[in-house]
Amino acid sequence: MRSGPSDNLDNGPGLEFQKSVTDQLVILAPGLLGGSVARAARARGAAGRITLWARRPEVRAALRGQPWCDDVAETPEEAVRTGSLVVLAAPVEKIVDLARQIAPHLPAGAIVTDVGSVKARLVHECHRARRPGTHFVGAHPMAGSEKTGWENATPTLFEGRVCFVTPQPDDDPAAVAAVQDFWTGLGARVVTLPAAEHDRIVAHISHLPQALATTLATLLAGRDPAWRDLAGGGLRDTTRIAGSDPAMWTEIFQQNRDEVLAALQAYETELAGLRTAIANREWPEVHARLEHGQGWRDGMKI
Amino acid sequence: MRSGPSDNLDNGPGLEFQKSVTDQLVILAPGLLGGSVARAARARGAAGRITLWARRPEVRAALRGQPWCDDVAETPEEAVRTGSLVVLAAPVEKIVDLARQIAPHLPAGAIVTDVGSVKARLVHECHRARRPGTHFVGAHPMAGSEKTGWENATPTLFEGRVCFVTPQPDDDPAAVAAVQDFWTGLGARVVTLPAAEHDRIVAHISHLPQALATTLATLLAGRDPAWRDLAGGGLRDTTRIAGSDPAMWTEIFQQNRDEVLAALQAYETELAGLRTAIANREWPEVHARLEHGQGWRDGMKI
Repeated sequence: MRSGPSDNLDNGPGLEFQKSVTDQLVILAPGLLGGSVARAARARGAAGRITLWARRPEVRAALRGQPWCDDVAETPEEAVRTGSLVVLAAPVEKIVDLARQIAPHLPAGAIVTDVGSVKARLVHECHRARRPGTHFVGAHPMAGSEKTGWENATPTLFEGRVCFVTPQPDDDPAAVAAVQDFWTGLGARVVTLPAAEHDRIVAHISHLPQALATTLATLLAGRDPAWRDLAGGGLRDTTRIAGSDPAMWTEIFQQNRDEVLAALQAYETELAGLRTAIANREWPEVHARLEHGQGWRDGMKI
Repeated sequence: MRSGPSDNLDNGPGLEFQKSVTDQLVILAPGLLGGSVARAARARGAAGRITLWARRPEVRAALRGQPWCDDVAETPEEAVRTGSLVVLAAPVEKIVDLARQIAPHLPAGAIVTDVGSVKARLVHECHRARRPGTHFVGAHPMAGSEKTGWENATPTLFEGRVCFVTPQPDDDPAAVAAVQDFWTGLGARVVTLPAAEHDRIVAHISHLPQALATTLATLLAGRDPAWRDLAGGGLRDTTRIAGSDPAMWTEIFQQNRDEVLAALQAYETELAGLRTAIANREWPEVHARLEHGQGWRDGMKI
């Protein structure tokens, strides 16, 4: 079910406002996440017309043939000209530039959101770039894969996944609600919180695990390569995300440097505590740590 | 297809010897691994009669009803009296005691193997406990689960998994071959190597990942518990083995203390290297580490 153009925009916020917000969905620089936004929006009838823009001409050509793409624009400015909701799906370090580039070309009332993994600086800068009468409400869907690129996009990528929404205090509540509803409509569980808190949390639950998996992989790469094929499922799971895109993760560590460093230092202290307990043969302490970790893990929602 | 008793044991090592070796399979103290040995041996026709002994009377009673159990003995001594191949499936710290207990009661030619996760001291002690004319050849199937206990045993647990076999230099080659063939017959990929080398390898590919997963879990348990349910698949995979049995892992860290400490120290150095690169904004170095880890992970089978 696609919603057609709204006949009456004078009813104020509410269903009509929400319908009009997703009437003209624009996705800039679609990769795995942006492509999945388009596919999910089409599959779930969560958007009207879907317009895409990609930097590379060959990608624009390929997108033209996709059933979840109604229009392909030649430039970001052209793409957003009639946009009601614009999703900035570029790599995290490119999002601010894109927000600045499109700002003068957005129609009144347009809402911009994004998919960047690190939010505090990005949200601040995108906010500054806004023109009066337009909105920016940051978002970060916690979905991804070792596979990147729009070719791997799926309509179910966001189902049941958390999507953080990180408004600023002076954001228009109706624009915040529209962005929340949009991600909910793609199947995500929306969690709304300040951008700085977001960055501290993802440093621990996403960026730290990446650093640990990569470090285990680089340590073992320096040992006998044949060991790799002797491992059980534990090593396979623990290192799975080490297979992720190095360029993307370099950017994330760069963007969230301070919070990542704090999380790494806390982890090093915790690990040294376990090592010391083993070194000192404090087996009840070792057992207590294993049990504490088990209790936490057992409480995790699948 | 079960193999019947061999008519002629005078042909020397070879098929007849191998058939006779698995004619009377005895499994002592079956948990997940021992139970799966019994189920796999029955399903694959890899053993003749299967006799089990468990410490707790209620487990012995429950085992009597299982189609993969022909006899339940009241004591380890009684269980092994006519055994041709004996599998010590007790927790790793109990295996040496069990080997000493049964040693005087084994028939001539009997071969004993085990499933212990740490091998050097265990193999040395079990070797010393042997009586002339009997054999001990250590083994460690790299199979397991967060689920423990014989009730969770499956006939496919060893399929495609590595099983280490750790002979001593003076072991009878026919006994070593029989143990290798037995584990191969259960579906495992047998890897034969000295016990000390085994312990160094598993410290890195199994015990270190456990320590890292547990430490990530205990760190996050000390933060806001609500964070747990915000995570994506990365944290779930990275911490999966934190759900493993604390008592079992305390014993493993205890048994393999020196190698685990060495692996932990090497990991801490490697992690500090990544942290320093991030702190110093050495982004090409950070990228190189991520790429190095990705290359190692991409080369992993499965």
